[in-house]
Amino acid sequence: MNQINASIITIGDELLIGQTIDTNSAFIAQELNKIGVWVMRRVAVADSHEAILNTLSDEAKQADIIIITGGLGPTADDITKPALCDYFNTELREDEAATENVKTIFQKSGRPLTERNLSQGLVPANCIVLPNARGTAPGMYFQNDGVSYFSLPGVPHEMRGLMHSGVVPKIKETFQLPAVVHRTLLTAGIGESFLADRIQDFENALPGPIKLAYLPAYGMVRLRLTGRSENKEAIEQEVAKNFEELKSLVNEWLVADEDISIQEAVVKLLKERKQTVATAESCTGGAIAQLITSIAGASAVYNGTVVSYSNEVKENILGVGKETLQQYGAVSEQTVTEMAGSVCRLMKTDYALATSGIMGPDGGSEEKPVGTVWIAVAHKNGKVKAQKMAFRFDRFRNIELTTHTAFNMLRRFIMEEEVN
Amino acid sequence: MNQINASIITIGDELLIGQTIDTNSAFIAQELNKIGVWVMRRVAVADSHEAILNTLSDEAKQADIIIITGGLGPTADDITKPALCDYFNTELREDEAATENVKTIFQKSGRPLTERNLSQGLVPANCIVLPNARGTAPGMYFQNDGVSYFSLPGVPHEMRGLMHSGVVPKIKETFQLPAVVHRTLLTAGIGESFLADRIQDFENALPGPIKLAYLPAYGMVRLRLTGRSENKEAIEQEVAKNFEELKSLVNEWLVADEDISIQEAVVKLLKERKQTVATAESCTGGAIAQLITSIAGASAVYNGTVVSYSNEVKENILGVGKETLQQYGAVSEQTVTEMAGSVCRLMKTDYALATSGIMGPDGGSEEKPVGTVWIAVAHKNGKVKAQKMAFRFDRFRNIELTTHTAFNMLRRFIMEEEVN
Repeated sequence: MNQINASIITIGDELLIGQTIDTNSAFIAQELNKIGVWVMRRVAVADSHEAILNTLSDEAKQADIIIITGGLGPTADDITKPALCDYFNTELREDEAATENVKTIFQKSGRPLTERNLSQGLVPANCIVLPNARGTAPGMYFQNDGVSYFSLPGVPHEMRGLMHSGVVPKIKETFQLPAVVHRTLLTAGIGESFLADRIQDFENALPGPIKLAYLPAYGMVRLRLTGRSENKEAIEQEVAKNFEELKSLVNEWLVADEDISIQEAVVKLLKERKQTVATAESCTGGAIAQLITSIAGASAVYNGTVVSYSNEVKENILGVGKETLQQYGAVSEQTVTEMAGSVCRLMKTDYALATSGIMGPDGGSEEKPVGTVWIAVAHKNGKVKAQKMAFRFDRFRNIELTTHTAFNMLRRFIMEEEVN
Repeated sequence: MNQINASIITIGDELLIGQTIDTNSAFIAQELNKIGVWVMRRVAVADSHEAILNTLSDEAKQADIIIITGGLGPTADDITKPALCDYFNTELREDEAATENVKTIFQKSGRPLTERNLSQGLVPANCIVLPNARGTAPGMYFQNDGVSYFSLPGVPHEMRGLMHSGVVPKIKETFQLPAVVHRTLLTAGIGESFLADRIQDFENALPGPIKLAYLPAYGMVRLRLTGRSENKEAIEQEVAKNFEELKSLVNEWLVADEDISIQEAVVKLLKERKQTVATAESCTGGAIAQLITSIAGASAVYNGTVVSYSNEVKENILGVGKETLQQYGAVSEQTVTEMAGSVCRLMKTDYALATSGIMGPDGGSEEKPVGTVWIAVAHKNGKVKAQKMAFRFDRFRNIELTTHTAFNMLRRFIMEEEVN
């Protein structure tokens, strides 16, 4: 099979001192995978002329496609363009369209245009400019010794636009690509090694061109089948057949049979049922709301949240009894149950979800150590279910585990409700 | 100067198909930088025996330290240990302490122990085991031809524990490290190129061992000075002197003179003043609450939020007038002003922050296109300030820009209040 290999090179000291988390590479890798290009390596290098040149020539030995991001800004630490000129043994030239684009962007924003900004219209003489509709730094495409090079700005929004408008079309034009089929499912409530024991025979019996991968997250495991072939239809069918078998093997813990998050699965379930949910969050501090509302169209099923970070808010807005709080404390079955019931009535929803816990690093006691969390789900008919969790991680992970567990509780509660 | 170079190798197909965003590398890079180790490169490679071996030998040509993460799980796609055996030309042996650790963890959790899990106690014969207090996969340390290798699990929580307990101490023991001093400041409300023009002379006059970096984020730019020297005291002083000059040059847009986020700056400001804030979020959907409450100790200054994703919630809980909503709409100066005032009273705080806007992809109109956002800040004394923004990005970025802008408005409002 004719496999096209790509390398992604990200440039910037900020990546090497850990000040920036590289989300660009993941996006680029996704887009390349969709069109059947295999990302062989991802390399991050410093804002150093020598390091950039060495990495370019190293990667060019193995890759058919090299995608470079970063170092195209207007400041002195942005050195990708001079490095590319050296690498291709050429000089900068002005690209009129790119210069016009800079001028237009500054005109629209009403900001004064400086020499420094105008220099963004300069590009290595051997490149084809890929117009950047979202910013001042042009994308660049180079063909050299059979390798295709793309240089993109590091600003994620601009890079994404250029991947769609420039890079992907150019690659499709240039290469004959194999078909790649991914099918992913999401499980919750079963550990990776138990899952592995359960599907061991299935995994061993998989045909050669299909690969299984485990992608664990806190409290959840994704399973992904990937098939590659020149025959698109055949591989699609073969992956689909194996995917059905995999689904039936893990059915008990199956959250979604597609590559979505658990919150997307919950939103989808509610949309199908034309039902709504509201949340009352204490320890998760808005994390649940934020995850739901980051899904476009969530407003059809989600009315809102009350984040009660003080007992006063629990009393005044959520109407949790003063006595409940005094007798049992904020982190208790009684409080979280009242929170869920109350927000369900207040926001007039079918379901409600409430959390209260101690996330750390401070606030724990012997009776209720850090990681103690109560989660409740409620239905407008008055039915409530509450569960206590004991997590043992840091603040960030405890919040993440709580949100995952809460979404899974809500999902199961909705599905049980349907049965009754 | 004796510079110690490190390479970070992350292993896993999930990184190359873009399903997982690599946060481990950033953490490892931060920890290495703190102790004066320069991360020269970061490479991500596939779960492929050959790719792992090639990358190890390539990186070993230049690096003094190689840190490998991933591929240590109990499933068939975890192949780091066999690859390391081949690379070092050795065999797996059982490490009793590592096996005991696996048993203890399973005993505690009450889960049954399988052969697969027990195999996590096997390690290459030439390694020194770094005990993993947070999971079943042991960390491993190798010395070979003058290069130090560390192999760590890819689970972030476990990797972080091992960096602190095993890797950093071993590196300090093994190498003579230079002093590295970072000083970072955060600006908001000025573009990168304007900033660059403003501090151009300063940048050109910087002494050799001090480097300036620009780290732009939406609506904000971080500036970082980094100095390296064998003389710790001298470089600290020199960086401090230059940092003071830099601060005075950007004073007008200065949010923080340390490496913190804008929400941390706001929480700090409120803590110093022993004041509190509440939020009423529509379009940001809990993102503001989530950012504040992810800061440990935020409960001292933050009472909570009401996320009103429906007009009903705006009316019933926040008490926004039905007429206001009918006459001006949910995305209007009037509504957002009422939201801020109301939540300030409801949650009994000194300040309140409210947002309402159209984040996209749907919901825009000619009069109020996607990206139209109203933000209001209120004081309990009745003073309110509202501002309209017109963003032009995708949903995710529009939310991020709104939160940054909102935090900066609140910060300026608090500081003005203090003056009056």
